[in-house]
Amino acid sequence: SGLVLVKNPHLDLMEEDILYHLDLGTKTHNLPAMFGDIKFVCVGGSRNRMRAFAQFMHRELGLAGDGEDVADICAGSDRYAMYRAGPVLSISHGMGIPSISIMLHELIKLLHHAKCRDVTIIRIGTSGGLGIKAGSVVITDTAVDSSFQPRFEQVVLGDVVVRSTELDKDLAEELLACSREIPDFPTLIGRTMCTYDFYEGQGRLDGALCSFSSEKKLEYLRRAYDAGVRNIEMESTAFAALCGLCGLKGESRCFHLL
Amino acid sequence: SGLVLVKNPHLDLMEEDILYHLDLGTKTHNLPAMFGDIKFVCVGGSRNRMRAFAQFMHRELGLAGDGEDVADICAGSDRYAMYRAGPVLSISHGMGIPSISIMLHELIKLLHHAKCRDVTIIRIGTSGGLGIKAGSVVITDTAVDSSFQPRFEQVVLGDVVVRSTELDKDLAEELLACSREIPDFPTLIGRTMCTYDFYEGQGRLDGALCSFSSEKKLEYLRRAYDAGVRNIEMESTAFAALCGLCGLKGESRCFHLL
Repeated sequence: SGLVLVKNPHLDLMEEDILYHLDLGTKTHNLPAMFGDIKFVCVGGSRNRMRAFAQFMHRELGLAGDGEDVADICAGSDRYAMYRAGPVLSISHGMGIPSISIMLHELIKLLHHAKCRDVTIIRIGTSGGLGIKAGSVVITDTAVDSSFQPRFEQVVLGDVVVRSTELDKDLAEELLACSREIPDFPTLIGRTMCTYDFYEGQGRLDGALCSFSSEKKLEYLRRAYDAGVRNIEMESTAFAALCGLCGLKGESRCFHLL
Repeated sequence: SGLVLVKNPHLDLMEEDILYHLDLGTKTHNLPAMFGDIKFVCVGGSRNRMRAFAQFMHRELGLAGDGEDVADICAGSDRYAMYRAGPVLSISHGMGIPSISIMLHELIKLLHHAKCRDVTIIRIGTSGGLGIKAGSVVITDTAVDSSFQPRFEQVVLGDVVVRSTELDKDLAEELLACSREIPDFPTLIGRTMCTYDFYEGQGRLDGALCSFSSEKKLEYLRRAYDAGVRNIEMESTAFAALCGLCGLKGESRCFHLL
């Protein structure tokens, strides 16, 4: 049906669902009217960048007006910022797995309540490249953890739940084909490693509070490269796992562009 | 000496240290002049709240002007917001361990470069209470993970590094004594549990994308209560571990108020 699946039967029994961190809710807002026609959702860390992206989409889609005054739909909350340009929603998610995880929970429930169909979710952001030219765009086929495994571990009530982090291969190929029309950006498909920290987790000798040997760092990054990792960031495994959990993977396609 | 310790000898050899997410740096800013007299740092998730807190401190300290136009020191970055009121710095850290971890790395290096002495760091934020009256203030003595253990696990170059999450007991007692002057807020000292997720991690039946039994949830929360947990949030273990790592614990004291 192309609808977004939410595997919590309790949800439809609730009188009201408050999407607290987005400052939206099923009683206070007419979500189908506001969001029912959304077909693409682009998410990224920085609120300023997601605002600029919405303005860019506004111009690209040739919508009325110059799009400069695009309004923050979540203005009542300072946790995330949300903008729309035609059928495209642009939302910030902050930094790290817990932050994107809260946003995705509320976004996916929003798409469910709004009865959206055939939605494609794309994360756009910056990352550290591994053995690739600076400025390259990496389209993620699979997100991996710091042991290079395609899994996302979430502790639910003290138990570890393991989820798959594969992304939509067809969508990745489709995006790679699009990239051939833009010659300025070298684009490739690869694995993306997701860490829980920017400094120590990614072995930044120049920024961490503790020290570690540069030999050890090189050896680790070499193993990551050999496992197919081409870039490192901090949200991809949670993104892939949560989209997959809600049926967004197969039908609505989601992938990860850095 | 009361100085902030940074256990990365590489740091003092660098020509420039760019605190990227704070939009500050050792070459672009005179950090000792800007921050050398800071004695208290208060951190919290929301940028609006940390702004309101700086305005409140401005009034409480009787500083000149009404404090309404307090400037965001990190205005060039949209990752975090930072304000100061006299010797008090007020900074937002976003949501979750990775987000506070990036901010604390840069904040601790900032205090180090600025040659600050005897700094007390306090996290102030909201949390879910466990078996306590709504509106209570919990002063954390020890932060624990989702297995109720006083530890923070950080993956550094693929290896798990385990750090202690004890906070300063004397400071906790001192704050409890202060609270006796404010009768409206029931205040207690307890353990704080830190999770990697707001919905599934904390077993929110009404908000999660997956479902779980309410019996299982109750059993888990009962075990948490028996282990001394009085509230649940998403940053305390990383906060306690990073402050402890840099000598802020013993000398400069840090604790966690929710």
